[in-house]
Amino acid sequence: MITLDMVYEASNVLRGVATKTPIVESPKTNVNSKVYIKCENMQVTGSFKLRGGYYKMAKLTDEEAKKGVIACSAGNHAQGVALAAQKRGIKATICIPEGAPLSKVEATRSYGANVVLCPGVYDDAYATAMELQKKHGYTFIHPFNDDYVMAGQGTIALEVLETLPDVDVVFVPVGGGGIISGIAYTIKQLKPSCKVIGVQAEGAASMYNSIKNGEIQKLPSVVTMADGIAVKEPGDKTFEICSKYVDKIVTVSEGEIATAILSLIENHKLISEGAGAVSVAAAMFNKVDIKGKNVCCIVSGGNVDVNLLSRIIEKALHTRGRIIHFSAELPDKPGQLNNILRIVANAGGNVTSINHDRTVMDLSVGMCIVDLTIEARDHKHGNEILGLLSKNGYEVILR
Amino acid sequence: MITLDMVYEASNVLRGVATKTPIVESPKTNVNSKVYIKCENMQVTGSFKLRGGYYKMAKLTDEEAKKGVIACSAGNHAQGVALAAQKRGIKATICIPEGAPLSKVEATRSYGANVVLCPGVYDDAYATAMELQKKHGYTFIHPFNDDYVMAGQGTIALEVLETLPDVDVVFVPVGGGGIISGIAYTIKQLKPSCKVIGVQAEGAASMYNSIKNGEIQKLPSVVTMADGIAVKEPGDKTFEICSKYVDKIVTVSEGEIATAILSLIENHKLISEGAGAVSVAAAMFNKVDIKGKNVCCIVSGGNVDVNLLSRIIEKALHTRGRIIHFSAELPDKPGQLNNILRIVANAGGNVTSINHDRTVMDLSVGMCIVDLTIEARDHKHGNEILGLLSKNGYEVILR
Repeated sequence: MITLDMVYEASNVLRGVATKTPIVESPKTNVNSKVYIKCENMQVTGSFKLRGGYYKMAKLTDEEAKKGVIACSAGNHAQGVALAAQKRGIKATICIPEGAPLSKVEATRSYGANVVLCPGVYDDAYATAMELQKKHGYTFIHPFNDDYVMAGQGTIALEVLETLPDVDVVFVPVGGGGIISGIAYTIKQLKPSCKVIGVQAEGAASMYNSIKNGEIQKLPSVVTMADGIAVKEPGDKTFEICSKYVDKIVTVSEGEIATAILSLIENHKLISEGAGAVSVAAAMFNKVDIKGKNVCCIVSGGNVDVNLLSRIIEKALHTRGRIIHFSAELPDKPGQLNNILRIVANAGGNVTSINHDRTVMDLSVGMCIVDLTIEARDHKHGNEILGLLSKNGYEVILR
Repeated sequence: MITLDMVYEASNVLRGVATKTPIVESPKTNVNSKVYIKCENMQVTGSFKLRGGYYKMAKLTDEEAKKGVIACSAGNHAQGVALAAQKRGIKATICIPEGAPLSKVEATRSYGANVVLCPGVYDDAYATAMELQKKHGYTFIHPFNDDYVMAGQGTIALEVLETLPDVDVVFVPVGGGGIISGIAYTIKQLKPSCKVIGVQAEGAASMYNSIKNGEIQKLPSVVTMADGIAVKEPGDKTFEICSKYVDKIVTVSEGEIATAILSLIENHKLISEGAGAVSVAAAMFNKVDIKGKNVCCIVSGGNVDVNLLSRIIEKALHTRGRIIHFSAELPDKPGQLNNILRIVANAGGNVTSINHDRTVMDLSVGMCIVDLTIEARDHKHGNEILGLLSKNGYEVILR
């Protein structure tokens, strides 16, 4: 069972290893309340996972430490365990499903871990990890369902209370439930009046469902860009702690997550992964009433593949009307393309991509189609531009 | 003339307005020294410019304040002045050249400034600003060549010395010379042993040239992704202070800047604009000897258009061999494309884009060409993949 002593001990053990990450004010997240963000994306290894992993390893016996540890993860836990083991001088083996982004595999290797790439998905990698554990006597470092791991994550709450003693509400991302268990337990011991709200992606609401139904429920599948919290089933330990100490669990949509990611980029120059941004999305979209409150959103990590990042940004810009994709049909003769571009430019639109194709089959002969992507200020501005094109005789189809 | 009293006064005036931005350790920037980064990209408005602009406005007479201020900028200065004026309750007019990114125009407007979009380039916008100033009696807020503005930027040095009393070297971006004048002056008053190194982009080395030649020199043109420091000519005040207090000015290449931006993204989850990253590039690529030193890099801003950001990331990934663009010629018959993709996948490459075209004119009939973009771990891995394709009879041309 997790205790406050363990959280304090973890905090002590982590000194000089984990960073006390910045807490910054976020005036644009919600105009009706005072919002702060705790930047665990700026934590060493790019997420909070180092905290729990390192504390867990600090508690191994000499014999266990000598044999080494094993973990299974495609993401943050892999890097957290790898670096923790390196810092403790312990051998680490990390099983990673083959399809994981190269950047994450390389980051894990860069911390000195022995990476085993496993064909198949997470479950296959987990099976391999179990095999290797039995064969070599490694200690398995669970990503969330472990008292020491939870206590390590709980140190985040100590830092929040230290910097923001007047905090009223804390939003915490929830996947398996490790970080929120540590934080909720710690906050409720030290400042019971502070609400702790868990946030899940709509497409991976396993803890939300389990709490609602009063028993652990397993999702058949999870679909979300927030891969760091795409967990099918909470742990029994984390479920118990969340049932007891978490005030409420809410969910956010994919569009809300993307908007939160873009807001962190534009307003704070911070890169967050989907899992990290759900807390900000919950505050931004008023998932609970926070009017007049002091709010802290835990941005749990920032390990997002740069290619995925581009796609998320694009999605958010599109949602906000700042990127418009459309096609226009026009006569296949000189000057037409130029004419369209002139209209867009005069209206203050900025063309970012253009594709001109004469071979589309269902067009009349003598007509061609041009696909355009333009930047606009917002939905209103975009509609003005499209209206001008229509007025000039071009049939416009939004894509 | 700037004085230390002014810097302290600015620091006092800025309390509650500007953020004391985080200073974080950056172990991967240079393995031979202890590098920290000062995150002025996390400053309100996304850059340090608010500091100088706000202090300048705090020093206006009531009459001047009543008439309002005017500035000319396509970037950070526009936002800094706009927010400073809003906070001081002063009317601000900002002249912005028409071609500026919409995101910057909108950000400036969002702080309540009256934006005048001026046809042409910066010089045209400047001319308009001068006209409006004369006509309405506005106070012109110079982006760098002003004692109060420099003193405001000097507050960054106070924060660096407070957090890092043992700092040996500070790297500071240099455009017109405002931020480095404030920082160099302050550091040399308080800790003369600390070296202050200015960093410019190779393609905009106006202060570098001017100091080298002992007189102000104007560049005919500037070309760099670091638009925030793309300045043709330093000011006379900033030139004088830099001549006296800056230890050395160095330059960094575009590739080095892109690499620094990517490193800030991957290792710190921080978005920096080109101008902001030059300081990190200088430490990373050993532009002066920093072995064993405590180093602080000022990341001056993060206002980079998201579209430009994607292109910069792509450039850096390409430089590091993590993205490879190539074409392969293959017989135009079923199964060939699949065969190539199989070879790439088996070698651990990840295809991110594919373009298959049969209409390229100088190909033999019966042949077609496929353009591929793949992710690899590094140059070595990429060469392995290309080698395998060649071995299987595909002619590969790097693009």
